[in-house]
Amino acid sequence: MISFHTHSVEEQTPEAKNRMQHAFEILKDEMNSDKVGYYKLPTLSLEHTERLKSIDTSSFEQIVIIGIGGSTLGTKAINSLLGLKTQNVKEMIFFENSDPLSISNNLAKINKEKACFFIISKSGGTIETTSIFKTIIHHFKLDLDGADNHRVFAITDHGSPLSRFAKHHKLAEFNIPDNVGGRFSVLSAVGVVPLAIAGYDMNSVLDGAQEFINSFFQEDENHLLQKANLLFEHRQTQSINVLFSYADSLDNFTKWFVQLWGESLGKIDVEGERVGLTPIGLIGSVDQHSFLQLIIEGPKDKTVTFIKIDDFENELTIPDISLYAIEGTNFINNKSFNTLINAQSDATMQSLIASDVSVDSISLDKISAKNMGALIAYFELLTSLVGAMLKVNTYNQPGVELGKQILYKNLENN
Amino acid sequence: MISFHTHSVEEQTPEAKNRMQHAFEILKDEMNSDKVGYYKLPTLSLEHTERLKSIDTSSFEQIVIIGIGGSTLGTKAINSLLGLKTQNVKEMIFFENSDPLSISNNLAKINKEKACFFIISKSGGTIETTSIFKTIIHHFKLDLDGADNHRVFAITDHGSPLSRFAKHHKLAEFNIPDNVGGRFSVLSAVGVVPLAIAGYDMNSVLDGAQEFINSFFQEDENHLLQKANLLFEHRQTQSINVLFSYADSLDNFTKWFVQLWGESLGKIDVEGERVGLTPIGLIGSVDQHSFLQLIIEGPKDKTVTFIKIDDFENELTIPDISLYAIEGTNFINNKSFNTLINAQSDATMQSLIASDVSVDSISLDKISAKNMGALIAYFELLTSLVGAMLKVNTYNQPGVELGKQILYKNLENN
Repeated sequence: MISFHTHSVEEQTPEAKNRMQHAFEILKDEMNSDKVGYYKLPTLSLEHTERLKSIDTSSFEQIVIIGIGGSTLGTKAINSLLGLKTQNVKEMIFFENSDPLSISNNLAKINKEKACFFIISKSGGTIETTSIFKTIIHHFKLDLDGADNHRVFAITDHGSPLSRFAKHHKLAEFNIPDNVGGRFSVLSAVGVVPLAIAGYDMNSVLDGAQEFINSFFQEDENHLLQKANLLFEHRQTQSINVLFSYADSLDNFTKWFVQLWGESLGKIDVEGERVGLTPIGLIGSVDQHSFLQLIIEGPKDKTVTFIKIDDFENELTIPDISLYAIEGTNFINNKSFNTLINAQSDATMQSLIASDVSVDSISLDKISAKNMGALIAYFELLTSLVGAMLKVNTYNQPGVELGKQILYKNLENN
Repeated sequence: MISFHTHSVEEQTPEAKNRMQHAFEILKDEMNSDKVGYYKLPTLSLEHTERLKSIDTSSFEQIVIIGIGGSTLGTKAINSLLGLKTQNVKEMIFFENSDPLSISNNLAKINKEKACFFIISKSGGTIETTSIFKTIIHHFKLDLDGADNHRVFAITDHGSPLSRFAKHHKLAEFNIPDNVGGRFSVLSAVGVVPLAIAGYDMNSVLDGAQEFINSFFQEDENHLLQKANLLFEHRQTQSINVLFSYADSLDNFTKWFVQLWGESLGKIDVEGERVGLTPIGLIGSVDQHSFLQLIIEGPKDKTVTFIKIDDFENELTIPDISLYAIEGTNFINNKSFNTLINAQSDATMQSLIASDVSVDSISLDKISAKNMGALIAYFELLTSLVGAMLKVNTYNQPGVELGKQILYKNLENN
């Protein structure tokens, strides 16, 4: 169960109501016309967990993921949040960056005989991904057509170069629907297949997402439209959106959000204007001792969304010990850390409200696969709504092409 | 060796020259009058490494740090950057957050007989730190006055409650100068003592910092004044400062920078205005696949500073393998990942310059203790300069007090 609260209620003008209705219709059309595919993933992807029943993955103790950006961020988010709460989960090792030290360090962790390898790329042309894949083939002497055939999986678009590669070597292949972009792909095969093999209950994640998406299209999540509208209306003066999550295990979720928000909304709009909102991910209580000062006293250019977990299902309690000269902190003795972290979240929220910062909050009753799915769907829908209001193409990323062209030119001439 | 390049040269008005000179004089006065202590830490802290020669720390294989914010971020930054390049370094385990799951998870990693424990707090009143310390005392049945006395270290201000606690139990105690704030304290005992015990060459880190600070006060780092002036002049339109580091191991350094920048400059200035610049840390090449789109096409409200490492001292090379249907990426075969990641950094930088974004860059010739020290000093001095130009108190954090008061009231009445 997830609940949502806003602390910045505003009167809705007829214009705002029209804007919300219009954005809602755009999303409905994107879904019904299959222009945008992520809305139907939670149901479509059940085929992947079904198919996995016929593949023997029991010998794999390490799940190695080779991918970058949208091919890994969502998977890492789920692995981090559910990892400490799931029994007997397998180790996941991510190769993302072209940093030679982290690649070398990761290579040393792998026992090939106990590992399976996922190469994940919509096209197969991602330079980091293919370079690292070649390095792994070479380093572990992978016999793609023989002894190691069963341990290599490809996740890619239908008909892509990587798909042709997989078919050539008869590798297990899972496809991403063409109408699903990288940063909206966590609930496609991209996330579902490796996470299911790792031992996560992906059917429940999909179920949680489907329920939230259904509820949204049944017009039962009006708060989401209101939030999108507020973010839109204040886009000039509050152009920075902070996600302040009170759990270390939400760190990778905030990174997934940063990609989703930044890359989807940072665009040149239909009128040729540069638009976009800048996402920032924070972790409480740690960042109360870092970034909070800037939010409280700095320019009022930020909104803050809190995520808290009501019940960590952990009993760890501050012992009833009095330390010489530090007796001043005894009032917290005998309280659980669960109580402490949520009291810190509440206090920070109240101090921001008192400082007149736009604040809303999301409460998970506990850490669960279903809540994870709903949380993903919530932020994806919010992104699509704000994109519709900003009149941008939420689903492309033309701005990164120039850098790629320069890279190819520099390297080819080198 | 570190070198600095800017790609946003501007004519300097007489007003700008006065502003730079004035800020420089403020820093000189802060140092000479001992109002601000961090300038002298690189020399002062040599006493800590000297003192450690007389303490037997050879039995410790795990260095457990209990602290938060300024008490840990700098230590983590150094541990991450130098960790993969330093032989036989000891494991460091950080307890920072009040998250019950990460505390439980960390507790399970510790073998008390091989561990030493640092409690780090300027006052001793930090709620997370004392709560976790009590939990550790209870969990490991630490006998502070007997068998475990030698494995517990306190790092704190002279005369603080934590100092009185340490004296009461005759614990090893190291002090932070009163004129050094938490986020400027990494080169005090806070970072130097645990990192030296872990096996890092802290004398070289201190040496690198001292050299850069000397060079700055000898007026040999004029680029730093120019950069501070640019950031100040464009503070309204380019209020977001991105640090884009091309190495996974710089991730914690960017987090240290985020605290330093956000908490130092996000202030109400002498005229009662809210001022501040918003820091963002990115890691390349990964975040080319995430945040870059927003920088390129979104609002032009950001400056970008690149950090790159010329020589990772790692030979890992992309093998000369041609993959069926993916031959398009063969042009990168036989090149090292070192070449690839730096070519990516250069290409991204060029694409930003072509998009008219303010860009500058910092190149480390290699990962070394000395370069680490210089990099720390560089960002500390830059922060002080911009703070002087913004007319704020760079060294306090009054904005976080309200949240603490609310927390104490909520918990005491609970």
